[in-house]
Amino acid sequence: MVDILHKVGIEAPAAEVYSALTTVEGLAGWWTGDTRGDGASLGGLLEFRFPAGGFDMRVRDLGQDERVVWEVVDGPEEWVGTRVDWTVRGAGDRAVVLFKHEGWKEPVEFMHHCSTKWATYLMSLKSLVETGKGAPSPDDVKIDDWD
Amino acid sequence: MVDILHKVGIEAPAAEVYSALTTVEGLAGWWTGDTRGDGASLGGLLEFRFPAGGFDMRVRDLGQDERVVWEVVDGPEEWVGTRVDWTVRGAGDRAVVLFKHEGWKEPVEFMHHCSTKWATYLMSLKSLVETGKGAPSPDDVKIDDWD
Repeated sequence: MVDILHKVGIEAPAAEVYSALTTVEGLAGWWTGDTRGDGASLGGLLEFRFPAGGFDMRVRDLGQDERVVWEVVDGPEEWVGTRVDWTVRGAGDRAVVLFKHEGWKEPVEFMHHCSTKWATYLMSLKSLVETGKGAPSPDDVKIDDWD
Repeated sequence: MVDILHKVGIEAPAAEVYSALTTVEGLAGWWTGDTRGDGASLGGLLEFRFPAGGFDMRVRDLGQDERVVWEVVDGPEEWVGTRVDWTVRGAGDRAVVLFKHEGWKEPVEFMHHCSTKWATYLMSLKSLVETGKGAPSPDDVKIDDWD
C-alpha cells in the first residue's frame, strides 16, 4: 500500500477550510464545478465529475473543523477502495491542511499523475479560501497529457 | 520506506528537459537560483541552497536524455540518504517526466510539505522548458508556513 501526501497552509480560520471540504458549493469552487451530493453528513455520498470521468465518495469520518475522510466507492479501478483523508489544524486566523490519499495498491504511473494533480487542486483550495477564487475543473491547471 | 511520486508532461524534446536537470543554468532556472556544482557527470556533486537551508546531491545515475538519479548526501536529517529519481520519456516534441523522491523513513509532516513543494517545482520545470521562465527559489510558489 502506498500513499499520496500533501500539505498546504491557508490564511483563514479552520472553519472556512472545513466548509470548502464539506459543502457542494465549496467543493465546486476548488475541485470540480460538477459536484453533487452531501458532504456534510456521515455516510453522505459525493459525486465528483470531470470531463474524463469521475469519482463517487462516501463520507466516512467528520470532525467539525478538523477532519474529513472520504472512501472512494466508484471511479477508476485504481481509486476504488482508497481513502482521501483531510486533517485541518487551525490556529486563530491560519490553518494547516494535511492531506493523504491512501491505500493505493501499486505506485503506478497514474498515481504519479494523481499526486501532482492533487497538489495543484490543494493550491486551488488555498486560493479559493484565501481569495474567493479557485481553479476547479474544467478550469484546472493542466499538468500532462492526461490533463 | 515511503516515496513521493509526481508526473508532468512537457511540450519540448526530452533533450531540453534533460539539460534542465543536469546543467547548473537549467537547475537554477526552476529549482533554486543558488545552484552550484556538476550535474552532468557521474559522481558529480550538486549544491542547492535556499533561504532556509539546502541540499547536497551526488549524481548516481545518468542516462542521456532519459534518466537522472541524485543521492542526498547532506541536508535535513530526513533527506540524507534518500534518492531523487528522474525518468524522462520522450516522444518527438513532447516529454513525460516521472519523478520519485524515495527512501523516506517515515511519512512525517515534513514529507507532506516536500511532496506538495516538489509538485510546484515540477510545474516550474515545465514552465522553464516550455516558456523560458520558471519559478525557482527565492521566487518560488509559497505553499505553507514552512514556505
